[in-house]
Amino acid sequence: MLLPAELNAAYGPLVRRIEAEATVVGDDILRIDHFLNHRIEPVFIVELGRELARRLSAYHPTLILTAEASGIAPGLVVAQALNVPLVYAKKYAPDVEPPALSRVIPSATKGGNTRLVLSRRYLPAASRVVLVDDFLSNGHTAVALADMAQEAGAQVLGAGFVIEKCFRHGRAALEARGVPVAALARVERLEHGRVYLVQTPD
Amino acid sequence: MLLPAELNAAYGPLVRRIEAEATVVGDDILRIDHFLNHRIEPVFIVELGRELARRLSAYHPTLILTAEASGIAPGLVVAQALNVPLVYAKKYAPDVEPPALSRVIPSATKGGNTRLVLSRRYLPAASRVVLVDDFLSNGHTAVALADMAQEAGAQVLGAGFVIEKCFRHGRAALEARGVPVAALARVERLEHGRVYLVQTPD
Repeated sequence: MLLPAELNAAYGPLVRRIEAEATVVGDDILRIDHFLNHRIEPVFIVELGRELARRLSAYHPTLILTAEASGIAPGLVVAQALNVPLVYAKKYAPDVEPPALSRVIPSATKGGNTRLVLSRRYLPAASRVVLVDDFLSNGHTAVALADMAQEAGAQVLGAGFVIEKCFRHGRAALEARGVPVAALARVERLEHGRVYLVQTPD
Repeated sequence: MLLPAELNAAYGPLVRRIEAEATVVGDDILRIDHFLNHRIEPVFIVELGRELARRLSAYHPTLILTAEASGIAPGLVVAQALNVPLVYAKKYAPDVEPPALSRVIPSATKGGNTRLVLSRRYLPAASRVVLVDDFLSNGHTAVALADMAQEAGAQVLGAGFVIEKCFRHGRAALEARGVPVAALARVERLEHGRVYLVQTPD
């Protein structure tokens, strides 16, 4: 099992791109959608996936769990690296086969609420689950996924994120549920158009 | 350039799984979400992506274009196989950097309408675009993507789908815009819980 400092070490190739290429909008939005969640560069996302997989492999997951839409690409590359299935929760999806698990979460980017839905069929009770997503912010999505997995009788062993916003409370919410967190880059704050990253793993 | 028969040859590994594992709901829903768009098996989706990439490589795309959410996984594996970026349109996304391209399309699974949004920044005017998605049905999404790409001054050279529902009109709509279509499995009809696939490429 990796130590917290190893789970959260700043990942150089990502840090360099954030420092050189990110746009900061106000004190909350870190825009890196040219490689993370609107345009995806296959070679780079695979590299991010391998690094997250390396940090999370000691949990021996039997499936990677994420939510549509921006979790799918990072989730898939982690799943590829560990050769386990990726399951993604759908949003507002009446077409998911019942019986389904669901949770309503606030939608940060779209306003209002969103319903996350997961078919029970794809979360067998004995699953060893690792959560993956692009961003960890308030943790609403990750906590909802963890709760649904636990409701299905699965174990949630860890969670991996490309970026963590440390000025939100997602990590605390997951750790309070006994879920250790890995992040490749940790944003301490966004201020005057600049991004301040946590340079030293804690 | 491949002939239409080659672009649309039934892909054996996919056909066998559809015949053995698909659930048919009514005369419209082919449920294969255990490997295509709710749960993803990395090895199999990579294989589907390689086959689509092989059929589409003669168009020498410089980017793969799809829409969230279920297009992301097949789009990413095609982009990986061809080593070009994947760009995906967001749905209801006020956080996309303006100026943005957008189209409103009817949402088959969610009811009502959905707004697809694409940042112009990720569709350079000289792009050679290939569309990829999980399903081709009425073609609303694919046509909206093609229109936005053309509005940005890009060329749309072809489109590839894992599954085509031949009893809908997506292929005709794309071909009317000069976009050739590739499909790995073509559903002729869904009837009494059975799926009838086009066995011989036309």
